[in-house]
Amino acid sequence: MSAGPHPIVVHGRPLAQGRLPAVCVPLVARTADALLAEAAAAAAQGPDLLEWRVDFFEGAARSDEVVARASRLRQAASGLPLLFTRRSPDEGGQPAALDDAQVAALYQAVCRARCVDLVDVEMQADPALVAAVCDAAREAGITLVLSFHDFQRTPPAAELLERFRLAHRLGADVAKVAVMPQSRADVLALLQATCEAGETLPIAVAGMAMGPVGVVSRVCGGAFGSALTFGAGQAASAPGQLPVAALRAALAVFRVVDRD
Amino acid sequence: MSAGPHPIVVHGRPLAQGRLPAVCVPLVARTADALLAEAAAAAAQGPDLLEWRVDFFEGAARSDEVVARASRLRQAASGLPLLFTRRSPDEGGQPAALDDAQVAALYQAVCRARCVDLVDVEMQADPALVAAVCDAAREAGITLVLSFHDFQRTPPAAELLERFRLAHRLGADVAKVAVMPQSRADVLALLQATCEAGETLPIAVAGMAMGPVGVVSRVCGGAFGSALTFGAGQAASAPGQLPVAALRAALAVFRVVDRD
Repeated sequence: MSAGPHPIVVHGRPLAQGRLPAVCVPLVARTADALLAEAAAAAAQGPDLLEWRVDFFEGAARSDEVVARASRLRQAASGLPLLFTRRSPDEGGQPAALDDAQVAALYQAVCRARCVDLVDVEMQADPALVAAVCDAAREAGITLVLSFHDFQRTPPAAELLERFRLAHRLGADVAKVAVMPQSRADVLALLQATCEAGETLPIAVAGMAMGPVGVVSRVCGGAFGSALTFGAGQAASAPGQLPVAALRAALAVFRVVDRD
Repeated sequence: MSAGPHPIVVHGRPLAQGRLPAVCVPLVARTADALLAEAAAAAAQGPDLLEWRVDFFEGAARSDEVVARASRLRQAASGLPLLFTRRSPDEGGQPAALDDAQVAALYQAVCRARCVDLVDVEMQADPALVAAVCDAAREAGITLVLSFHDFQRTPPAAELLERFRLAHRLGADVAKVAVMPQSRADVLALLQATCEAGETLPIAVAGMAMGPVGVVSRVCGGAFGSALTFGAGQAASAPGQLPVAALRAALAVFRVVDRD
């Protein structure tokens, strides 16, 4: 494995032609019809992948409905890779109608059907749930994102680095850390941990600081090794996401440089 | 004095309406005619100030010619503030035709004539030269930038912070540090020192990492307290400067956020 940082790989191919970061637009519609429209509109803005935040979806409790919907979503998204993510309220998600066993069954159904390309689960969730998602993704050949979120504060850089490493030890293909900075120094701590994780781990890493203070990390994280950034389409799924068009315009400046 | 970071203040007014960073385009023409054309073209791109790199100018040895030219430059630049900078070859400048005493006399003539709005001198230059420039700027009410450059490497963050502090102790209104990063971690060290200096010193600070690895610092430095960034107009005056239009497009994303 070459020195990092590494791009996210889906079905053997690096996202965004291997450039860092790949741009992801979250889908947060409540109804099935709105979801298809949201996916088509998001795909038209040229992201590298879409994330279905299934906790926003009114049909999230019915696995068969979710699987059917995911397949339609991929069609509507013109072949863009689809990341499947369910968050609990503790993890920044919507009010939960499912218990942990039901959430595990949902991820398992989606993986078995191979109707998505990546799945993301929070590392601080119930260990049995995390293990079930890891196994299901591995068996199906689906790219596994293990995440750590702190919506209140930013732990020290050494602690954040340990979270990236934990994700790798648990079997992640992508280790993601998202924190809430209270200061510019907190943003630098997040970038420092992301940078070191990216250069030392054999997997892709993604680091982002949320909220207004953290916006800069969504633009410049790729320069420090972050393989993924989120831009808002119809609506943001976490605080501080820039409109995807503005985000892409800002990222374009780094391609000016690459050509030099 | 309120908590930092602080914008650069010229004649009592903050540059860029107090936003960080102000955008500066360097003027590097060799002849008097080319210089006026370059200034007009640069001003049309909407920077917040222009820097005349007088070491590129063929008439730099004649103080009267430089003073006359500076006055014409300000007219050509539609009233944009003009930063006057002379660098020796050791400091990234052009081959030198002047000795230190002549350089001091040049800065003194320019300050006395009040034909520029800011002056910049390298802190590692001859101490008598630095002192002469400090005194001349102070007496004329011209904003004083004291700079530290390392075109080879990036000293540790603590050492960079000490350079910012030294500039303040020497009487600078703006403390500027520019380094050559060899790694992403070097860029973070520069940003960390800039951030801490900006939050603890009562003056404006400017930090930039040069070359391709450092480009990100020219875009995101303002979010970490840097009050100044350079974008290339007709030509770059230091490695890694983005075309000013691309730089401004990238910086615009942070204004999207400010409006939220």
